[in-house]
Amino acid sequence: MNEATTGTHAIHNGRVILSSQATVPVSSKAVQYGFTTYESLRVVGGVAIHLADHLQRLKNSCSIIGLEHPFTAQQISGWVAKLLAVDTIQEATVRIQLYGGAEPQLFILAQEIISYPEHYYTDGVGAITYHGERLIPSSKTGNLLLNYLALEEAKRQGCFEALLVDRHGAVLEGTRSNFYGFSGNTLYTAPDDLVLQGITRDRVIAAASELGFSLVFQVILLEDLRANRYDELFISATSMAAMPLAAVDSRPYPSSYERTAAIKRLVRSWDSKEDV
Amino acid sequence: MNEATTGTHAIHNGRVILSSQATVPVSSKAVQYGFTTYESLRVVGGVAIHLADHLQRLKNSCSIIGLEHPFTAQQISGWVAKLLAVDTIQEATVRIQLYGGAEPQLFILAQEIISYPEHYYTDGVGAITYHGERLIPSSKTGNLLLNYLALEEAKRQGCFEALLVDRHGAVLEGTRSNFYGFSGNTLYTAPDDLVLQGITRDRVIAAASELGFSLVFQVILLEDLRANRYDELFISATSMAAMPLAAVDSRPYPSSYERTAAIKRLVRSWDSKEDV
Repeated sequence: MNEATTGTHAIHNGRVILSSQATVPVSSKAVQYGFTTYESLRVVGGVAIHLADHLQRLKNSCSIIGLEHPFTAQQISGWVAKLLAVDTIQEATVRIQLYGGAEPQLFILAQEIISYPEHYYTDGVGAITYHGERLIPSSKTGNLLLNYLALEEAKRQGCFEALLVDRHGAVLEGTRSNFYGFSGNTLYTAPDDLVLQGITRDRVIAAASELGFSLVFQVILLEDLRANRYDELFISATSMAAMPLAAVDSRPYPSSYERTAAIKRLVRSWDSKEDV
Repeated sequence: MNEATTGTHAIHNGRVILSSQATVPVSSKAVQYGFTTYESLRVVGGVAIHLADHLQRLKNSCSIIGLEHPFTAQQISGWVAKLLAVDTIQEATVRIQLYGGAEPQLFILAQEIISYPEHYYTDGVGAITYHGERLIPSSKTGNLLLNYLALEEAKRQGCFEALLVDRHGAVLEGTRSNFYGFSGNTLYTAPDDLVLQGITRDRVIAAASELGFSLVFQVILLEDLRANRYDELFISATSMAAMPLAAVDSRPYPSSYERTAAIKRLVRSWDSKEDV
């Protein structure tokens, strides 16, 4: 059950522990109810990319659901550095998982870095649509059953991602990604309050702007997707940067994906320039 | 963080372990995503009340979310008996928690039995209403953040329970209870497909019928509550049987609560007559 933990060690409330000891009691209410927030970030060349932004979002996630805890961004940042040092980690996905309740518990784990074959970017990947609404879209919590079930269904259909569609037929975001559509040189994506404020989404938006695209914060309706109102679709996430969608629900959305590729290059070029 | 575990031992996939060892890895996807189902049942006089019904519901919960596992009801039933024997448990709340994924993990824990002061039943308790919809109402899963947040808000307001109100203004159920309203000798409660099929709810319905009340499976609208269309309100759960609501959102709903008390007595009288 201890999937994908790569480091020998982990951090628990600031202490270095063996990663096999990074466990929580089944009897804990925070565990049973998913009263937990988390962040997942990339470590490349020994550097935790955009760590400050991830810690700011962790703080926002906690604040939105009222998860109180004593850990400061400065402390957590130091603990991440400690974990990278103790296992001399150059590349990893670092997960920060914070359980609330009477005795808050913060874990930091180093897992294998996620990377995708180059042809995913050149040929695009497939997605399905899945009807369902996240409870609190702006907070990264443990309330993830919808995401789990939607992504499992996508995998069953041989697809890479599931796009969540709300009661109004708006395609808001993926289970672990934000979602975008180009119409010519205009890029559409959902308004901030309806989706997770992706750390990479912020950079996709900045990159699109820098590349001269117009930006419209407006939901993408499923019926407009099907009516070909968008001529290039992509998703973004920490692990993906920007990845083109070749098909949604088996319906092809062919493109050269050059606009997405330009955004991806610019977003990745910023990875090494910021933060710790 | 190891709240309310009373027994010295627990069960993990059929094996007796120390209850302090009933833990799950923070790195597990099933834990992170809440891909878990559970049951909570009462042990009185060494007997696990309505165990067969709880195991049937656990099976339904798993089937609804596609949680596959190798454990049979007969096995789980034997493990509950083993746990009661090893710690010579007479009274407890037993929790069965089942994590899905590649390596399903089933835990059985004995926690302190939940009981309430007699005046809760004679005077009624207070509830708030809370807007939000459960993702899959009929499956008892770990996707419980809504329930957690709603109940915390109720406690902050000095109330016992929060009643969840859907987008149509229907008061469907509590965070850990089903919800009912009497209008004279007619009892109203939500249709089966909109709420959790409570083990106690089944018995409340049978008791109401045996006591000569008419039953209507129809949602209770918040506006109808406020317009005094119901003259006695109550909630039901394994731990509560049937408990009257004296107030909702600080608005009193006075009654003698005799109809609820009659149902409660009959429901509790059946506890000792069935199952293991």
